Amino acid sequence: MSFVDPRNVAFWLYDWLGADALTGHPAYADHSRETFDAILELAEKLAADRFAPHYKKSDRIEPTLENGVVRVLPEIREAIAAYAEAGLFAASFAPEHGGLGLPHVVDAAAMAHFMAANVSTAAFPMLTAGNARVLTKFGSKAQIETFALPEIEGRTMGTMCLSEPQAGSSLADVMTRAVPDGEDELGPRYRLTGNKMWISGGDHDVTPNIIHLVLAKIPDADGKLPPGTGGITLFIVPKVLPDGTRNDVTVAGLNHKMGYRGISNCLLNFGERDGAVGWRLGEAGHGLAIMFHMMNEARIFVGLGAAGLAARGYRHSLDYARDRLQGRPASAKDPAQPQRPIIQHADVKRMLLAQKAFAEGALSLILFCAHLIDREKVAGDEIERARLSNLLGLLTPIAKSWPSEFGLAANDHAIQIHGGYGYTRDFDVEQVYRDNRLNPIHEGTHGIQAMDLLGRKIIRDKGVSLAALGAEIAQTVADASAIPALAGQASRLGEVWQKVDDTVAVLRAVNADPLANASPFLSAFGHLVVGWLWLDQAVIIFNDTASDRAFREGKLRACRYFIEAELPKAIPQLELVASLNDAAATMPEDSF
Amino acid sequence: MSFVDPRNVAFWLYDWLGADALTGHPAYADHSRETFDAILELAEKLAADRFAPHYKKSDRIEPTLENGVVRVLPEIREAIAAYAEAGLFAASFAPEHGGLGLPHVVDAAAMAHFMAANVSTAAFPMLTAGNARVLTKFGSKAQIETFALPEIEGRTMGTMCLSEPQAGSSLADVMTRAVPDGEDELGPRYRLTGNKMWISGGDHDVTPNIIHLVLAKIPDADGKLPPGTGGITLFIVPKVLPDGTRNDVTVAGLNHKMGYRGISNCLLNFGERDGAVGWRLGEAGHGLAIMFHMMNEARIFVGLGAAGLAARGYRHSLDYARDRLQGRPASAKDPAQPQRPIIQHADVKRMLLAQKAFAEGALSLILFCAHLIDREKVAGDEIERARLSNLLGLLTPIAKSWPSEFGLAANDHAIQIHGGYGYTRDFDVEQVYRDNRLNPIHEGTHGIQAMDLLGRKIIRDKGVSLAALGAEIAQTVADASAIPALAGQASRLGEVWQKVDDTVAVLRAVNADPLANASPFLSAFGHLVVGWLWLDQAVIIFNDTASDRAFREGKLRACRYFIEAELPKAIPQLELVASLNDAAATMPEDSF
Repeated sequence: MSFVDPRNVAFWLYDWLGADALTGHPAYADHSRETFDAILELAEKLAADRFAPHYKKSDRIEPTLENGVVRVLPEIREAIAAYAEAGLFAASFAPEHGGLGLPHVVDAAAMAHFMAANVSTAAFPMLTAGNARVLTKFGSKAQIETFALPEIEGRTMGTMCLSEPQAGSSLADVMTRAVPDGEDELGPRYRLTGNKMWISGGDHDVTPNIIHLVLAKIPDADGKLPPGTGGITLFIVPKVLPDGTRNDVTVAGLNHKMGYRGISNCLLNFGERDGAVGWRLGEAGHGLAIMFHMMNEARIFVGLGAAGLAARGYRHSLDYARDRLQGRPASAKDPAQPQRPIIQHADVKRMLLAQKAFAEGALSLILFCAHLIDREKVAGDEIERARLSNLLGLLTPIAKSWPSEFGLAANDHAIQIHGGYGYTRDFDVEQVYRDNRLNPIHEGTHGIQAMDLLGRKIIRDKGVSLAALGAEIAQTVADASAIPALAGQASRLGEVWQKVDDTVAVLRAVNADPLANASPFLSAFGHLVVGWLWLDQAVIIFNDTASDRAFREGKLRACRYFIEAELPKAIPQLELVASLNDAAATMPEDSF
Repeated sequence: MSFVDPRNVAFWLYDWLGADALTGHPAYADHSRETFDAILELAEKLAADRFAPHYKKSDRIEPTLENGVVRVLPEIREAIAAYAEAGLFAASFAPEHGGLGLPHVVDAAAMAHFMAANVSTAAFPMLTAGNARVLTKFGSKAQIETFALPEIEGRTMGTMCLSEPQAGSSLADVMTRAVPDGEDELGPRYRLTGNKMWISGGDHDVTPNIIHLVLAKIPDADGKLPPGTGGITLFIVPKVLPDGTRNDVTVAGLNHKMGYRGISNCLLNFGERDGAVGWRLGEAGHGLAIMFHMMNEARIFVGLGAAGLAARGYRHSLDYARDRLQGRPASAKDPAQPQRPIIQHADVKRMLLAQKAFAEGALSLILFCAHLIDREKVAGDEIERARLSNLLGLLTPIAKSWPSEFGLAANDHAIQIHGGYGYTRDFDVEQVYRDNRLNPIHEGTHGIQAMDLLGRKIIRDKGVSLAALGAEIAQTVADASAIPALAGQASRLGEVWQKVDDTVAVLRAVNADPLANASPFLSAFGHLVVGWLWLDQAVIIFNDTASDRAFREGKLRACRYFIEAELPKAIPQLELVASLNDAAATMPEDSF
């Protein structure tokens, strides 16, 4: 069973985004719609055959730590090996790095199948690819050959080591120290000492080696660590050193999670003996900026995971609603008649349509963002590249947060449709819900995304990116307004855009902390973005009268539902933000 | 540690509801504020000493079924024994049944401590008291003595057996059959055959006997079961018969739940051999009406459980936010300064205040409803009794659904405040969240509550109950309008009330299915009710200038937050309902 409908993927990639046009650019000249489709079919099949089957088992049997060795379910190792063998680690890398040179949008669409099939197993390649991307972008030739290429072949996994027990969201406070230790062919060498917390895939037996990318600070002449984020540097710290000896990296403990259990999550101690050997990646003090390349990719993939789980819950509850007989709809109440499938109940339809609107809205948001990376690469000039880059920066916190919040809301509906059965472990939806609950937390919490969006991407950016988004939305509103069946929806979207714009104007003008209500703004802004993407897709499908009737009607309905039933929820949120409400921000601590 | 602040309980019972005035009525003449407080202190201590300690263990070690015998954690049996020994099963029963004759509002406040401490252990006395209440109300003297009195002493537990595998929400479709088998001193005797699903406490080793209240149909002369709910009758089916032999009731399986794990949840087979012996309770065909006395009580207690879990999550995350150092608030960004407790961050304050508003709003809603039962009992005339009864009927679906929905939202914030730690099983909040997810499902799903509210309690009732609520709200709005600091909030509440009233008028006038959007109406109506109760409490505390400053400010803030940040969310929901939006209801099935 496919949790992500291939008809949707084809609609998004070709009918809506026109991603096949990328092949007109030299960077993608070796590719065609056929090569895209081949990889997508491969991904769909591999996800179903090798990732989905151990979904529940990997929840029941968690990774173990014994005598310093972490073991995961053997099925996970086998799935990753099959993924590597199929060449999927290499999908989005350039041919000069052994990659297939596929566009990011195709890579993301392929990954959607894996995320939906088994989100915690899929986290291994997701983190590894992100890690290799940073290495290929910022590493020396020797560093790339030694560390990145084995990752791109899927022989070695990668991690990102940012947080510490005392420094979760506040990376300025990392205390891991890196002391210079000479230089060799892999670059300036250091000895690292410190503890890193929440390291997904921090240790395991999936592959013999693991490449850790570690944030640390280099002490000054007095041995003190520089305060703030400016002093943070990035280091490549392999589990096994190039000479085959074990590096000084120890697993101090595993975190036992509510869900997302297949992948180990570790507390790692660096330097319990002589200091872990690490090579500097990029310049000293540039660590956070470099790491954010991986972090931004990871944020989009967190959103993809949440979207995949939303799609999965939708699929499960749709199948259940079609099979389960219970009661009779309002139009046929005669109790002497047999019971009817619950899909006939208006409230079940509502919960299904909401899931469709959330899941497909979230997936299309992620593909739109991935496509922005590709469009930036093939853009004709610097102005267009800057515009696309700004748009991606603005949308990244939404790509991370919106699917995490509303994918979970979709999963909540999926459980509810199953009734009591949905609350049992005999069905998948309760695990889907538990797995998805991680997504608003890792790779930057919801609150962090809110501050990033409103503080960095809107206010500090002086509205440049926001204006780029506004132009896109205006175009969609204009297109939809020309279609009578969509004109009402266009008008509603336009109103919400105006409200967002007005709200931002208020926030720019005040002296008070503009970020006090950043979280409600984030939710409302996400609804605006997803409403826009839905309407943009509705314009396409409306004009494509040759498309399958049921498919077309489903898209138009989901758009209409989102804009009529969901988008208006942004209004009171924006009014709250614009009113500079301080009920919470000025609450005295002793009154809680 | 107390999860439900005794200061709040005292404020609600005495300052707000004036429940001590009940002692002026002969029914409660033996009681006083002192006897109320004694039972509340006892409950608080027993909950902390005997219910809270095995909270996590009862999640880790689920009930087992071996050779037909269900075993629960020994600590659960010991906790229930202590609860029985303290006389708490008897709290709300009349002295002639061995009870303490306490008002329901005091009983509910006492139970709040147990629900918050360990919701699944507390479900045993909750179900048993509800079962005994039905028996004492509808049973014969012999039935009461044989079945109810051991429950009131806590020597025997009780269940409610409604659902069947093919009949969950649709009780008209129950297929358990009851064939007449003579009559004895316990009344008309029957033999029952059928399967009952989702039976909480359906079997266990907490007490030797269990009294099942079972819905079944009596076949007609042709052996056919009458269709619909009219043919449903209620039977008393003990696990062990009065002569000490085992009845023909078998545990066919245990359900393995996402949370709420301490209490067994069973599939029971009645009559695998000769038919289970059961005595009819009340008249034939009156089964559902009688059962609804227990169901209505259970619905309020489900809301209490959800509210208790919300209060618990709030307490945990408040403690965590005061202890955890991370980052620096917007007003003190110097990274050379030490990190600050996260309670200083505006977004954390927001999530704490939302939890306070939800948890205390939910608890006060439940106590208001419990007090309505007591007020009905002491009411001076039939008109007042009818008014209070209508109000309780209208509020019961809200008491069930609102805490279930927003208690869960509160727990979501509690996890988020803990960051990654909240997602681990080292902390309690992930379990609190999993436990709470049952509450929108059992004892009538959210969708069932929505149809009950809008269909039965508003439209079919011709607005009589709604008018009673409107008069109460109008009084509160008038009182609050007279206080300048609350006048703005009063005006907002008045607007939402008007919007509800207008929406109902639209729904009454249409031919279309008025229930298609019953669920969004339910959520919005719940916000209206809780906003009203918050404002009603704000008037009291505002005028009580002698009360503790921090406590008073906390209440006024939580009210303000709820009315300014939460209540406006009802507006777009009500507009959707009033627009008779049919995007979901008319969605073609093949377009999902």
